[in-house]
Amino acid sequence: MDSKTQRSLTPGEARQKIRDGHTDTTSGWSDGWAQANLLAVPRAQAFDLMLFSQRNPKACPLLDVFDPGAKRSSRFQGDITTDVPAYRVYEHGELVEERTDVADLWRDDLVAFLFGCSFSFERALTEAGIEMRHTLSGSTVPMYRTTLPCESAGVFSSSMVVSMRGVPPHRVPDAVRICARYPAVHGAPVHVGDPSLIGVTDLEKPEWGDSPVLQEGDVPVFWACGVTPQAMVIESRPEFAIAHAPGRMAITDINESELITP
Amino acid sequence: MDSKTQRSLTPGEARQKIRDGHTDTTSGWSDGWAQANLLAVPRAQAFDLMLFSQRNPKACPLLDVFDPGAKRSSRFQGDITTDVPAYRVYEHGELVEERTDVADLWRDDLVAFLFGCSFSFERALTEAGIEMRHTLSGSTVPMYRTTLPCESAGVFSSSMVVSMRGVPPHRVPDAVRICARYPAVHGAPVHVGDPSLIGVTDLEKPEWGDSPVLQEGDVPVFWACGVTPQAMVIESRPEFAIAHAPGRMAITDINESELITP
Repeated sequence: MDSKTQRSLTPGEARQKIRDGHTDTTSGWSDGWAQANLLAVPRAQAFDLMLFSQRNPKACPLLDVFDPGAKRSSRFQGDITTDVPAYRVYEHGELVEERTDVADLWRDDLVAFLFGCSFSFERALTEAGIEMRHTLSGSTVPMYRTTLPCESAGVFSSSMVVSMRGVPPHRVPDAVRICARYPAVHGAPVHVGDPSLIGVTDLEKPEWGDSPVLQEGDVPVFWACGVTPQAMVIESRPEFAIAHAPGRMAITDINESELITP
Repeated sequence: MDSKTQRSLTPGEARQKIRDGHTDTTSGWSDGWAQANLLAVPRAQAFDLMLFSQRNPKACPLLDVFDPGAKRSSRFQGDITTDVPAYRVYEHGELVEERTDVADLWRDDLVAFLFGCSFSFERALTEAGIEMRHTLSGSTVPMYRTTLPCESAGVFSSSMVVSMRGVPPHRVPDAVRICARYPAVHGAPVHVGDPSLIGVTDLEKPEWGDSPVLQEGDVPVFWACGVTPQAMVIESRPEFAIAHAPGRMAITDINESELITP
């Protein structure tokens, strides 16, 4: 499947391809449709996760929350247990397994949360002529743990995970302005410039993703990252959780044009 | 206390005045600080209320959710059981009492939700030269039940309650544009024009508030209203709930400038 075909897939067609065995990234799929980070937790922890999301909207921007036990919603008209290319299964905060479907692990008390994903704002930046260096070089955006605290909620706490993109100085204001209009997909950056001020000691060694692709003069710009909920699971150790594997997202029926504000 | 004094009260000073016995409206108090609709429900219903809010962000825009049992938060640094001028107490959806403090009714399992309030966008509209007819005539904005459905969540369902303001035709686009920048205080209107299309059969007879104040040629413009959570309580009959009395709001420590997007 070439990239043009990937881009033109409807969400339903994309989910069918995934059910049929696609297990790789969904980057570049279904142009104009929001992709989402997945985290499912038991009903007993779901209120705390909603509180955590409400208090940390940049790291955990809620696109949708399913009814307890539900595998679909009006905003994701597929099957959340089969229609994500790869899943990570956590028990007491330990990553115990990565697999391509979780139908047999699903429980009636699991609540699926979908959080906005950077793919949406990357598209808006690219359209405005701000190049995504990592995409052009075929690598994954670098992600870092920071010392920026998230506000705790019930059993959940975490520091913030950020992604970093190099932006030419004269485009930094545009990058901030454009992303600010998409609060549902992490919104404006959280930090511009010196990485050490947010606890990132070596830009070359991200915790997730690939080494950064920077051009001469680029300013490092940091966005709150949808990996934060998984860092939160690792730190807070809920009994059970299911997440997507990085880059392998849930493709929703939410049109990105609905997400733009005002 | 004159209106200039009311306007210049800090949130802390305003809450002290209320603790000291003010029981009337907070309209015009603490210029620049967000006022909030209150609804507290037992922990057992709190997840469903968060889901309902997530699914109906125009009617239930979440400003803050306290920890279970907590009477304060970083965004409301007072005592939610004494610092609202008047409260309404509901049992199984019945309004059983209106009173000026609820300290002795508070329970360790109650979760306080604060929702954005139209006072904030009214200030923005007034600053832009769009007159608030009801304020100038000293009346309360009219509020109506509609046939617009809210999306249900768990035990909660409701139709949407709206408030109505008359706006001259040439200012309707400005009213929409300005309010759209404040999604945390109901955001853009939900309907412009013919009231019968949303089930409002007699504009002169609102369910809450006073009769409308319209000038020749005014277009009726309808906003989702923070009374919706109370309509939801009446319809869904949770075991227990505490709300503010209309117009007698919780004055928060959230500066309105934080609420504007992008």
